[in-house]
Formats: sequence, C-alpha cells, structure tokens
Amino acid sequence: MKIDGTPYRTVWVDPDDGWSVHIIDQTRLPWKLDILRLTEVEAAAHAIRSMQVRGAPLIGVSGAYGLALAMQETDSDDALAHVHAELLATRPTAHNLRWALDRMGAVLRATPRRERAAAAWREADRIADEDVACNRALGSYGAQLIVERHRRTRRTVHVLTHCNAGWIATVDFGTALSAIYQAFDAGAEVHVWVDETRPRNQGLLTAWELAAHGVPHTLIVDNAGGHLMQRGEVDLVMVGADRVTRNGDVCNKIGTYLKAVAAHDSGVPFYAAVPSATIDWTLAHAGAIEIEARSGDEVRRVHGRGDGGAPASVVIAGAETRTLNPAFDVTPARLVTGIITERGLAAPAALATLFSESERAREPFAV
Amino acid sequence: MKIDGTPYRTVWVDPDDGWSVHIIDQTRLPWKLDILRLTEVEAAAHAIRSMQVRGAPLIGVSGAYGLALAMQETDSDDALAHVHAELLATRPTAHNLRWALDRMGAVLRATPRRERAAAAWREADRIADEDVACNRALGSYGAQLIVERHRRTRRTVHVLTHCNAGWIATVDFGTALSAIYQAFDAGAEVHVWVDETRPRNQGLLTAWELAAHGVPHTLIVDNAGGHLMQRGEVDLVMVGADRVTRNGDVCNKIGTYLKAVAAHDSGVPFYAAVPSATIDWTLAHAGAIEIEARSGDEVRRVHGRGDGGAPASVVIAGAETRTLNPAFDVTPARLVTGIITERGLAAPAALATLFSESERAREPFAV
Repeated sequence: MKIDGTPYRTVWVDPDDGWSVHIIDQTRLPWKLDILRLTEVEAAAHAIRSMQVRGAPLIGVSGAYGLALAMQETDSDDALAHVHAELLATRPTAHNLRWALDRMGAVLRATPRRERAAAAWREADRIADEDVACNRALGSYGAQLIVERHRRTRRTVHVLTHCNAGWIATVDFGTALSAIYQAFDAGAEVHVWVDETRPRNQGLLTAWELAAHGVPHTLIVDNAGGHLMQRGEVDLVMVGADRVTRNGDVCNKIGTYLKAVAAHDSGVPFYAAVPSATIDWTLAHAGAIEIEARSGDEVRRVHGRGDGGAPASVVIAGAETRTLNPAFDVTPARLVTGIITERGLAAPAALATLFSESERAREPFAV
Repeated sequence: MKIDGTPYRTVWVDPDDGWSVHIIDQTRLPWKLDILRLTEVEAAAHAIRSMQVRGAPLIGVSGAYGLALAMQETDSDDALAHVHAELLATRPTAHNLRWALDRMGAVLRATPRRERAAAAWREADRIADEDVACNRALGSYGAQLIVERHRRTRRTVHVLTHCNAGWIATVDFGTALSAIYQAFDAGAEVHVWVDETRPRNQGLLTAWELAAHGVPHTLIVDNAGGHLMQRGEVDLVMVGADRVTRNGDVCNKIGTYLKAVAAHDSGVPFYAAVPSATIDWTLAHAGAIEIEARSGDEVRRVHGRGDGGAPASVVIAGAETRTLNPAFDVTPARLVTGIITERGLAAPAALATLFSESERAREPFAV
C-alpha cells in the first residue's frame, strides 16, 4: 500500500541490482520508516529473529528470500540443508516459515545446481506474489461490503478494527485492512475506529498504516468500541484472525470477543478476513485451543516515546502486582456474521462450501 | 479500610488536636502514601481543585470540613456565604459538593455565631459518618453474594471489577469494593480481576487498595475479561456507577458495557453497587444521558513511573492522530442482574420498591 503517496511492499527485491532484498524495519514503526537492505542470508535471519519483519505471511516470504540470498553464494545440497535449518530456527513455531522453506527446498533440490540461484529468486517472488494475490482477493470481497453500504446509504461507512491485520503483517494489502484499502481506493467514504489493542498496542501500527495511505481513522481505547456500537457509530467490525476453525470460530487477538459480543448485542455485523491457509479444518471448534499466556511485563510496562521523541517506556504497575496476560481469545461462530477468504464471503456454517475436500485436507499455517 | 494493617479513612479530623483535617493525597497514589494536614480552608479548596481528594462522596465531605476550618477563623454570615462560594467553585459540577455545602450552610445559618464552629465540625463529621454507614450497608448486601457463593462452593470466588469503586473514592469502604472488603474480612476466599481501565488506568488504584488491605487480586488489560468469563474464571462482575436511572440502566466508566454484555453471554451475574444518592429517579432510562468526551491526550499519553521510580509518561501516538475519548457508557438494565444499594439488592425492575415515594423525589447527586 502507499506511504505518503508511494506504493510499497513490506519486502521487495531491488529493481536496479535485481538481487538485494529490501525490508521495512518494523521495530521502528510506527515512529520511523527505516528501509533496510539485506545482502546475505545472515541479515535475513536476523531480520526474522529480531522481528524487523513480523506477521506470519511476511516471515515466510522473508525466509524464502533469505534462502535465495544464500543460493547466490553457494548452491550445494549441504548448503541448502544448512541454510534451511538456520532460517527455520529463527522462529521455530512459525508454520508459515516452515511451509515456505519446505517449498523452496523441494523446488531447489529438483533443480540443477547452476540453475538454483535463479530458481530460488523465482520461487521466492512467486510466494510473495501469491500472498499479495490472496490478500488482494480476500480484500476485494470485504471491500464489496463497504462499497455497497456506501453506495446504498451515501454516508461514510464506519469500520471498527482490532489489533493490526494490515499490509505490514503481510507482503501487501493485509487481511482486514485489505478490505478497507480497496474500498477506500474505489472511492467509498470509509472511516476506521482503531482499537488501541492493549497490551502491545498494535492499534498504533494500524493507525500508522491508515495515515500513511490516507485513510481517515480515529484511535480509541479498547473500552470505547461497545459504546460506539450502541450509539450507531459503527457500521461493521472487521478483524483478522490467527486461526479459524472448521465451524467458523475465530481465534484472534485478546479482546476480539468483547467487540464481537457487543456487535451482536447492537446488531452490528462482525467479519473476520483470513487467507484460507489460516483455516484449521482439523479442529471442529476452537474451544480446545490453548491460549498462550504471555509475560506480565507487557501488562505492567507501556512503550512509547518520551517528550524528546526518543523511545521510552513507563511502568504502570510494579513487579509485586500479579498479572495475567492471555494473548488471544475465541469468538464463537454464533457471533460471526461472515468469514471473508480469497474464495469469497461465507457465513461460518457455509465456510467449508468455499473449498474442495482436498483443499480442506491441507495443513493450516496458523499457530 | 486498612493500609498495611492500619485502618484508614480518606479524610479524618486529627484525634489529638481535634480540629486539623488529614487527607490522603490521591495525586500520589498508587505510588506513594502521602498524608496531608489541612489547617485552613484554602488548603481544603486546593485539595479538591487539584484532585488530592477525588470521588463524589469524598469531595462533598472535604468541602464540609473545609467549611468547618473556615468557621473556626470567622463565623459571620458574610464569611459563610463567601467560603461556600469559594469551595463550590473548586469543582462546580460536583453535585455532592453542592449538596454538602448547602446542608452545612442551612445548619450554620440556623445556629448562633458563637456555636457555629462546633456545629460545623459536628455536621461535617455527620456527613462523613453517613457516607461510611451507607457504603458499609450496601457493601454488606454485596458481600452476602460472595460469602454465600463461597460457602456453597468452598472455592475461591472470582470477582471482576472495572475502574475504581473503592474506599479511596469515598470516606471509607467504597461501593463495589465495599462488598469485596466485607466478604474478605468475613473470611470468604475471594480473588479480584482488576481491569486496567484505560485511558486513565484507575484499575491501578484498585490494585493498590486491594494490595494494601491484603485482598488477592490480578491486574489484567481491559481486553482480557471476556475471555476469562468464557473460560469460567469469573464468578461475578461487580462495579460502581456514576448514575443509575429509574429502570436500572447503569452509567459507568467507559468499557463497563463490554463486560456486562460478555457476562450476559457467558452466564456470569453482573452487579452495580451504588448509594441511593446515585440513582436518578427523574430519568426513565439512560439513553438520553450525554456522554462526556474527554481530552484525546488521555488516549495518546500513558502515565507511570520511569525505571528510576520518578513519575514519567510516554506518548503512544502523536498529536496528528485523531482520537475519541468517551468517558462513560451505558449498560442497559436487561444486562444487569442486580443493583446493590444501602437498602438491599434488587433486580433493575424492582429497584424502586426499595425506596419510598418521597425518597424517590429527592434530587440525585451524580453527574
């Protein structure tokens, strides 16, 4: 999407030299736009490990480009196995990363050594382009909801979103925000209520993205969305998801359920926008998903900037204060109006009809 | 309630000199317990204006003691009128303050000048004691819910609360927390989930209070409570209220509605504990209440401590980020299991039966 008028992806091959890899350093966002140039696999591994790149699809693509950088240097089977292991170890639980590296490995092992470097670049580009195409497609279905509502009412469509399901978590477009960007670019008047999303405040990344692309938005605390729904200030809720189960349960950032249940109470439609790779067909429902409890320091400490503009943090509660920090929650399918995928929009109960039996047999990416 | 084993009120007359007024400086909480000694009306006015004392009942009582301090110096009708106006101007929209000052004024004007100082101390003490008695009474009804549940299940009772409805917002006991303190003091095993309560993080005051009195508790972000309810980790929700309307709608700190609607969805009972003075019998429902929009700086800036322990704040979003900061929301009566008052507990529809017609004709305090 655009940053101040210029189109960007989160990762791209240098158009001049044709081989070095550029990424947006996401550890500096939303405060600063720093573009890094990666010229060797170690830099790609560091970028993944240190979360300069983040978001499941982007991690996978970055790993693929890392492997391509390595193949330029040395293209032996041994080197391939070594680099595969090195990159996988950067985020060992990221399914997307494993999938992308496995796919690269399968292609490269079947390719003569002297053609491997070129094949690696082609395959990494393909993985990146597939991510973009998938997000563009699912966003187009989500955008229809906004565009049609705007056409019908001739009034600004107010969308509430939680966390960051934006283009910077993917190669481009994002998931929930893909719908918003495409509706905006199609001329629909849209305004986004951005949940702060404590404890890690990913809403600030969402606000940065929307500002950079020029989409009107308002930052609110996580407590405010229900009130806005009651007062008719929210036309629809659109979020991403970390995992969707076969029945349409949505496992997403902590606090999503509170917005879904309030939306249901106020008659506001609630949508989750996800690539099909996020759907876990092996799980009948999300009740059994174990919810990760993250460090209480995320609750106790808030990061931002000091008045001089330098990175700073404050402690809002001391170490003696006990905390609990569940990272995700489950929105039951009965509160979900629709799941938006690259195959279209479906009510939770009809989700399986969008996919063939063999597609539903694939392993999902999401953790 | 107790601070590290010693019983406190938020405001009290020095037991040795019999006339100077002590307050807990709430601008220093939850980080530091500073007791201030007020010896003249100007200091009382400053304490109210600068929010060294806060919470409607406490502001009223502090105004009454301020008037008593003034009457010691000069007890003329002119002085009385002047001081009344001076104190009222410190927080002009605080109904409790006006009510307490009017009550003091009526008593003092009917009292011979040389007896006014003594009468002022007596009346201020009476107002303070009435607040304590009211909160103790309403808390005893709330405590029954906890004590009985504990007796029945023999398991820890988990109560979720939002914002600070504790003793430091009153003279003693508080409202929602009065129930918890009395259940705890009666030996019931109780544990409190404390919502952070962005944007002003009053949950940290609640956590401080509970820690000081020794009540087990856990701080959570505002996003987490719904998930805990879904997983059976919350036995009941207990909050205070800024205003309750005739039908039992509860107007309280922003985010209360989200907890109420999630509680309803998960079958968790939801209670609001309020002194009857907070019930606005003139309003049939809360739909018409205008919700105060506060400064966006509260959303953009988070206050805490730096790593050295000194007060500090961070900016999480720049001034260019548009924000909206509604201060309260309305929980409709249909989501409220019961309203707890000093007269007992009633379902919203039966609230009026706790009070006589003449009681319901009184003007409420709440804003």
